Amino acid sequence: MSSQPEQNAGFVPLYNVRTDLALEAQEIVQQQIAAEIHGVVSENLQEDGIAINRLEIETEQAAQQLGKSRGRYLTFEVPGLRRKDAALQDRVSEILARELVRFLELPSDLQQAVLVVGLGNWNVTPDSLGPKVIEDLLVTRHAMMMDQKILGEGFRAVCALSPGVLGTTGIETGEIIAALVQRVKPGLVIVIDALAARRLERLHTTIQVTDSGISPGSGVGNNRLGINRQTIGVPVVAIGVPTVVDASTIAGEAFDALAEHFKKEPRGFALSNALKDLDWDQRRLLITEVLEPYAGGRLMVTPKETDAFVEDMAYIISGGLNSALHPRVHSESSEKYLAAAMWRL
Amino acid sequence: MSSQPEQNAGFVPLYNVRTDLALEAQEIVQQQIAAEIHGVVSENLQEDGIAINRLEIETEQAAQQLGKSRGRYLTFEVPGLRRKDAALQDRVSEILARELVRFLELPSDLQQAVLVVGLGNWNVTPDSLGPKVIEDLLVTRHAMMMDQKILGEGFRAVCALSPGVLGTTGIETGEIIAALVQRVKPGLVIVIDALAARRLERLHTTIQVTDSGISPGSGVGNNRLGINRQTIGVPVVAIGVPTVVDASTIAGEAFDALAEHFKKEPRGFALSNALKDLDWDQRRLLITEVLEPYAGGRLMVTPKETDAFVEDMAYIISGGLNSALHPRVHSESSEKYLAAAMWRL
Amino acid sequence: MSSQPEQNAGFVPLYNVRTDLALEAQEIVQQQIAAEIHGVVSENLQEDGIAINRLEIETEQAAQQLGKSRGRYLTFEVPGLRRKDAALQDRVSEILARELVRFLELPSDLQQAVLVVGLGNWNVTPDSLGPKVIEDLLVTRHAMMMDQKILGEGFRAVCALSPGVLGTTGIETGEIIAALVQRVKPGLVIVIDALAARRLERLHTTIQVTDSGISPGSGVGNNRLGINRQTIGVPVVAIGVPTVVDASTIAGEAFDALAEHFKKEPRGFALSNALKDLDWDQRRLLITEVLEPYAGGRLMVTPKETDAFVEDMAYIISGGLNSALHPRVHSESSEKYLAAAMWRL
Amino acid sequence: MSSQPEQNAGFVPLYNVRTDLALEAQEIVQQQIAAEIHGVVSENLQEDGIAINRLEIETEQAAQQLGKSRGRYLTFEVPGLRRKDAALQDRVSEILARELVRFLELPSDLQQAVLVVGLGNWNVTPDSLGPKVIEDLLVTRHAMMMDQKILGEGFRAVCALSPGVLGTTGIETGEIIAALVQRVKPGLVIVIDALAARRLERLHTTIQVTDSGISPGSGVGNNRLGINRQTIGVPVVAIGVPTVVDASTIAGEAFDALAEHFKKEPRGFALSNALKDLDWDQRRLLITEVLEPYAGGRLMVTPKETDAFVEDMAYIISGGLNSALHPRVHSESSEKYLAAAMWRL
Repeated sequence: MSSQPEQNAGFVPLYNVRTDLALEAQEIVQQQIAAEIHGVVSENLQEDGIAINRLEIETEQAAQQLGKSRGRYLTFEVPGLRRKDAALQDRVSEILARELVRFLELPSDLQQAVLVVGLGNWNVTPDSLGPKVIEDLLVTRHAMMMDQKILGEGFRAVCALSPGVLGTTGIETGEIIAALVQRVKPGLVIVIDALAARRLERLHTTIQVTDSGISPGSGVGNNRLGINRQTIGVPVVAIGVPTVVDASTIAGEAFDALAEHFKKEPRGFALSNALKDLDWDQRRLLITEVLEPYAGGRLMVTPKETDAFVEDMAYIISGGLNSALHPRVHSESSEKYLAAAMWRL
Repeated sequence: MSSQPEQNAGFVPLYNVRTDLALEAQEIVQQQIAAEIHGVVSENLQEDGIAINRLEIETEQAAQQLGKSRGRYLTFEVPGLRRKDAALQDRVSEILARELVRFLELPSDLQQAVLVVGLGNWNVTPDSLGPKVIEDLLVTRHAMMMDQKILGEGFRAVCALSPGVLGTTGIETGEIIAALVQRVKPGLVIVIDALAARRLERLHTTIQVTDSGISPGSGVGNNRLGINRQTIGVPVVAIGVPTVVDASTIAGEAFDALAEHFKKEPRGFALSNALKDLDWDQRRLLITEVLEPYAGGRLMVTPKETDAFVEDMAYIISGGLNSALHPRVHSESSEKYLAAAMWRL
Repeated sequence: MSSQPEQNAGFVPLYNVRTDLALEAQEIVQQQIAAEIHGVVSENLQEDGIAINRLEIETEQAAQQLGKSRGRYLTFEVPGLRRKDAALQDRVSEILARELVRFLELPSDLQQAVLVVGLGNWNVTPDSLGPKVIEDLLVTRHAMMMDQKILGEGFRAVCALSPGVLGTTGIETGEIIAALVQRVKPGLVIVIDALAARRLERLHTTIQVTDSGISPGSGVGNNRLGINRQTIGVPVVAIGVPTVVDASTIAGEAFDALAEHFKKEPRGFALSNALKDLDWDQRRLLITEVLEPYAGGRLMVTPKETDAFVEDMAYIISGGLNSALHPRVHSESSEKYLAAAMWRL
Repeated sequence: MSSQPEQNAGFVPLYNVRTDLALEAQEIVQQQIAAEIHGVVSENLQEDGIAINRLEIETEQAAQQLGKSRGRYLTFEVPGLRRKDAALQDRVSEILARELVRFLELPSDLQQAVLVVGLGNWNVTPDSLGPKVIEDLLVTRHAMMMDQKILGEGFRAVCALSPGVLGTTGIETGEIIAALVQRVKPGLVIVIDALAARRLERLHTTIQVTDSGISPGSGVGNNRLGINRQTIGVPVVAIGVPTVVDASTIAGEAFDALAEHFKKEPRGFALSNALKDLDWDQRRLLITEVLEPYAGGRLMVTPKETDAFVEDMAYIISGGLNSALHPRVHSESSEKYLAAAMWRL
């Protein structure tokens, strides 16, 4: 299957594929060029029903080929999460914590703040992942700035914000983060976002961690400014979960399914070829025709039970973050540990 | 365009078309059989940018043809609502109130209770229309049952419930309503529900009112029991707004767009016919193939701004209902009138 | 300290004390009459920082003395919960589960439904405990009614509802429950409610379980009808947590503190007596004077962090209930176990 | 009535009075010193059941006397709002808009941004006023920054944020605002906050607008840093509504009511004097004793129907702000006007 019909497309960026996942981009491009991509290092692990992929896009050329920024990508694929298995959720949360500790390279100085930002719109269920993670985060910076040692040892200075989306703030999320960073001076910014995937089986089963930041136009909420080390001024790690597929992807897949179908039919070969010969512009025109009645707004495809899945993913990520960020939580292996005194503030 | 390729399909029920709107079902079938359907009376009005359709399915045969229950259907189509026009919203609310008064044939005895039920899941934005309408409803039954005349004249005894969905209650919504009706003995039940449409342009622009109740399997939440006069024991009027399109509809439309495309091409006629010759089973197979990766769950297509649209529609419907149900609100043309004393209860 | 100044008050019902806790009522009356009350059996346990009291009001006379209905009361007092100790929360949840198994005397037939009702208003933080517990409840009745054995062994048929309050439904909560019980025919109804306590230290630290149901006028939401075996037709167990103190209690306590203060002063004895001589009518008049400016509405006192405490208590109770109701959850000691197949419904 | 027993207290700041309202502070001090306070100019208007007070604290001495910062205070008192009168709500919203236009002295350059910040915790009902106002605000800055003139004439560049409280962000709200101001460079910051009043009759009936900003420790959420022109760098206007009374105020009022009571009694004069002779330290000790069982947390008194009142006040304020800020909304006297094109962003 290919959503890029030109055979020699080679290094043309995959603008036609709407995916926020580097792993998907790699798969697609490899299928197209039927070869490894230079400048991409990929490593796979399997652990307890959890597939872990460590991917690094090392060169600018590879980045252009994949349509993804240079940087490290850590991807967890856990198809079992769709089955609401609480024990598996806890296991994923623990493995996420362990991998985050390795990935984040946190400073030993616990006083150096980490700012966690929950992107997205809390009023739209599949876009509410970020704010939901923030709700369960163990926020400590204010306690650690006070004179008294009310919090005890082993906590890192963590602060957090869910700013909402451009339509409700009138300010680009990137601007808000950059402003806060200038003031609060954290050593690291972690952003949490709901993503768009290209393949339905990724929905609510995949977690992507990357130090390449958030690209303009990615995520469910479609930010305009990039959020990365260059724009923000400090290292940025993005944690994302695909919660929607673009409706145009579904329409595109229908074409491909059709081409495959006719290929198998006796007299269908010509048809299959005709379908494959449709160039990208023609395909896009057709897809636009299908989706146009909605007059230009962006349409997302999401499962009916999106609320329960988003809830679960927020639980996994906030647990993983609390454990990765706070040494004390990590050592007591309780992602919910909360110092008594905090609540007297 | 046709999603039923057999030319003589005639009276085969349109199970293949996923729409909760009688108006859409009629359009589709009329296109197919290129004639009026017997037993269906339809009347169209245009008023202030609001298209009103009054449709009555009079015979069982017509009901089977359309795949909709016998009964009256009142449909408002207001494409302008997508533009967030506050004045238009108020106008629609007023016209809805006026038409509801005519449609509902309310008893003159204001003590006879009306039960309004908000169907759907408040945690899933496009399914939260019902609960949102209930939030803004002027509920009065408890005040009218008290000795003192605290409420004053001109109010009807209105009560309301948002029970939630089967997955969170473990009880069919139809069962909950039937139980309440047996106890509270209302003269009329009004249910509010988010619907699935077949055409994208209907999303958040259409309101359907019907006395045929809610069919099993319809609505976003997919109820299993019908909710109608037969199952509930008193007249049931359903008010619905399409907030999602089924993902399989999008895939199906892609096929049709493709067939249309090839028809216009010089050598594409054969191709177009080949596509049209796909029978329904083959189409369904292909669509299933496209959507299968999500492993059986139901996928819905919804615009990114679904929260704002659902909010607006809830405002329009609660306003229309408050005015239609309470003569005093109607005469003072204020959909938000609320007697002072109520809040001392 | 006594809020009932007549020394021989004896069997006068304690209408002047606004508490929903039987344990508090007993303490107050015992202080007044300086003796054990006949017809009340009380047993205390201490376990891991959790004080457990088992109280039974056996006679009608004792019930009148205490102003509480006859029945069994199980009370957990855990001052440590105010310190946000996650490990303690889990321990309380487990002990609650164990004690509930003993208290509820559940039928061995797992097909016999249990209906759990979350009372209260989800829009008012300290009154939102009931709905929050329902959100995390493992609801199974619908799955167990289906043909296929999708859920596996070891689950009880649990169904649930959060109906909202009289002001938003227009129907007494007792009526709604009675209607559902007639239809669903559960073997047991469990109601969850936020309570008013008389003493501030009880807030968010106490859980009361009772088979005497819910009395008219109790709870934060102030129901008018009783909810008990007599009104509902099946056994009713109420689980409650004090989340507010009535403002009039605070005013009353101020008088008592003043009397105590003057007693200790050299020339203050006459003053202290004058204060104690204020009879109940005079006290009530004064309190009304203090609170009157709010013109009759009911005022509640609640801590600023009420949201976090209600969240924690909902977590403890839903965990305890899931474990007590479902043998499989109990044996796997995971309060969040959820069968995979459920989410395909 | 006096909560400051020393007769010559004169210029002692009223730290013992917990009120965020300048009007209340003035009333209390004037009662004590039985005279006008120098350096305070006050003007009263009555209009349609709405009492408007314009107060200016001109000198530092007056500011110390009142325990309020220097600046202009505009107070609306509308007891009728407690009666849920929709027509009155609209009238208050319009008068608020008119007075805000006069008070804010907005720049004629509509491109100069105004930043509106909703303070408070959306999870605690009486503290959720700020975030609720932001939800209904007409936010336009992003649209006005785009090339195309999609929004049309007559709109001001408005942006907004609801950052949440210190406990959930770990960052002082004042820091967040200062950071944003440095980046976004608005000409004016408007902050919306829930306040604590001293008198119960103010709850949900009073709106205070002031250019003195927000003092450290005021508001329901108790901010530690001041938010004003000095700390933020641009003019700050605060709009507040009292939604809680401190529990210690209720206890204090009980003492006063008692003193008044005994004064009227034949032999009670000595008692009344003894009560009045209690100095502030003794009073505070007694109050602490009453409230101590809650172990130091802050307790708030709020009516049971706080959700409905906060909802209404948010409606009034967002309507008033939309009209005051956007000339086009003002001229069309529709507080909900929203340009169509905005939603295509």
